Amino acid sequence: MASSSPSTPGIDTSTVHIDLGDRSYDILIGEGLLGQAATYQGLPKSSTALIVTNTTVGPLYTATLRAALQGQHKQVLDVELPDGEQYKDWPALNTVFTTLLEKAADRKTVLYALGGGVIGDMTGFAAACYMRGVPFVQVPTTLLAQVDSSVGGKTAINHPAGKNMIGAFYQPQRVVCDLASLDTLPQRELLAGLAEVIKYGPIADAEFLAWLEANMPRLLARDKAALKHAIQRSCEIKAWVVGQDEKEAGLRAILNYGHTFGHAIEAGLGYGEWLHGEAVGCGMVMASDLSQRLGLISADTAARITALIERTGLPIKGPQLGADRYIELMQVDKKAEAGEIRFVVIDELGKASMRPAPDAIVRDVIAANT
Amino acid sequence: MASSSPSTPGIDTSTVHIDLGDRSYDILIGEGLLGQAATYQGLPKSSTALIVTNTTVGPLYTATLRAALQGQHKQVLDVELPDGEQYKDWPALNTVFTTLLEKAADRKTVLYALGGGVIGDMTGFAAACYMRGVPFVQVPTTLLAQVDSSVGGKTAINHPAGKNMIGAFYQPQRVVCDLASLDTLPQRELLAGLAEVIKYGPIADAEFLAWLEANMPRLLARDKAALKHAIQRSCEIKAWVVGQDEKEAGLRAILNYGHTFGHAIEAGLGYGEWLHGEAVGCGMVMASDLSQRLGLISADTAARITALIERTGLPIKGPQLGADRYIELMQVDKKAEAGEIRFVVIDELGKASMRPAPDAIVRDVIAANT
Repeated sequence: MASSSPSTPGIDTSTVHIDLGDRSYDILIGEGLLGQAATYQGLPKSSTALIVTNTTVGPLYTATLRAALQGQHKQVLDVELPDGEQYKDWPALNTVFTTLLEKAADRKTVLYALGGGVIGDMTGFAAACYMRGVPFVQVPTTLLAQVDSSVGGKTAINHPAGKNMIGAFYQPQRVVCDLASLDTLPQRELLAGLAEVIKYGPIADAEFLAWLEANMPRLLARDKAALKHAIQRSCEIKAWVVGQDEKEAGLRAILNYGHTFGHAIEAGLGYGEWLHGEAVGCGMVMASDLSQRLGLISADTAARITALIERTGLPIKGPQLGADRYIELMQVDKKAEAGEIRFVVIDELGKASMRPAPDAIVRDVIAANT
Repeated sequence: MASSSPSTPGIDTSTVHIDLGDRSYDILIGEGLLGQAATYQGLPKSSTALIVTNTTVGPLYTATLRAALQGQHKQVLDVELPDGEQYKDWPALNTVFTTLLEKAADRKTVLYALGGGVIGDMTGFAAACYMRGVPFVQVPTTLLAQVDSSVGGKTAINHPAGKNMIGAFYQPQRVVCDLASLDTLPQRELLAGLAEVIKYGPIADAEFLAWLEANMPRLLARDKAALKHAIQRSCEIKAWVVGQDEKEAGLRAILNYGHTFGHAIEAGLGYGEWLHGEAVGCGMVMASDLSQRLGLISADTAARITALIERTGLPIKGPQLGADRYIELMQVDKKAEAGEIRFVVIDELGKASMRPAPDAIVRDVIAANT
């Protein structure tokens, strides 16, 4: 986690290492990294590379990334997928495979995921499956992807019956977090990313939660130094969790704090209606309320979490889907076992665990927060 | 590789162990194994299991397998896919996912692949991807699947532009080879399976090739003891190769002897026209001819391989697709690199390697063998 290679004055580049044996890799965090050839040094060279991006991000950054990759690959292809969670599906994924096969891309081909969480998850899954596995690099351009989805090797597409149901654990070769790419991020997406940043406080680091409470105005104003600290601390916590439990046999599930309710909101409204981070923000409010009703945390602590989410500008009331529908959607959550829903709850600030909850209490939580 | 637990007189059950660290597993070879509860002892128990089979094999064996699994799972579901290589595609794979999600199958669910190579490859890939990975068991009912495709963890579906282009390395928990299931195998499929048996001679074991020459009449008459020896020796060789190179970084590619030409035949004619084993049989003739033209083996040796394939009743002349089309199809083979086709050639009987070949010689091979 040492600092090195300055980019623009005041912001050095930091490195967070993910330790997974022969699948270990670095997360680079700095300003202007995306367009610098040095960023990609030491990565696999190959005759062909494919940049996978979307119609929003592609026009902004594909040319810059392609130029930076000239020393790594003979030809750098690109494919633009439609933008949005509702396109995180098989037809869009197959567009990537068809592009690769039409260009006779071999199994040394390197994929670059240039975009947010949807692009990262899909590109990672495409890399996991193309010819049974090719290398890939994450170049996340949203805050949400930089602090969460690009790190840790969870890749997937959605199925109409459930989010991220079809996927793989497949680690990238490197993650490149360029703070400059956050300049072009719409405010709504910035807030959605902050939901995943906030997450790390209650589950793992009470001190970080206090820092977020003190620095939320700077983050909302996109202060680069504040954003860099938030990204780095988030990645450090995620690295620590993933390093212990790569395939979510246990501990890693705490990273899904707010996600059980959140996935139900996303699926219930139809993907793309709420942003993933918005659903997670609201889901954390519901999961905190659940933790309080289970007697794990005080009303003050639950209120403190809710207040931070509200100050961030994220929704704190879920859509009125009805308790039955919420429960039905949560029963297909990947953490469920034999039909029993398992929630990530806060045991105390900075510590989380996973457990089932009585149906009546879950219904109370839904009634009180929608 | 010790023998144990007799089933019917004269045929003991043998075990071949695949050594892959924490992904190690056993191949059981015997008669009547499919329907015996003891066969599945020690495998993961779970509330839900799904038997994936096809419309041909399902009516013959699903009920028997379900009965044998009663002690392992609370509910045993099944899904029947259409039968044939032309259905080794996304829509059929998605049928498996939809079935699992409709039944709210959790991530402890165990999948059972009951059928031939297509069912094994698709079930394995479904298991690799469902909720990012659930356990699966191979119950191959064809000779081809018992000696080759069910062993070693290669899973995949086809893309219109190439065979097995979308897949994963994902190991089963166990492989159950029931000799009794070969009784119902159509003769054409028996021969296709023998192609993959023959393969192991030239690439790894000249003595086994001599045994096959001496025992081909017994194999064609479905002599159980002969079939058992052929399956066991094939699995032992495959276990040895896969144990050294699980993800085909090098050595494992020799198992694709005959497959470069063979895949071109299958894709060129349209999947399902020729059986995979038929295409591989003919592909081995072409690859032997190539080996001879490259000066690696004598004309006598090449003729010996061709004679055995012909005596087995497999095609030794490929379809006339034209050399350009063959080459185009072989350039998207997974072993190709930067557009250069790489062939598995026989260096001497029992020893193979992978190398490119001059275009003119490849064209001569195609002209002489189609």
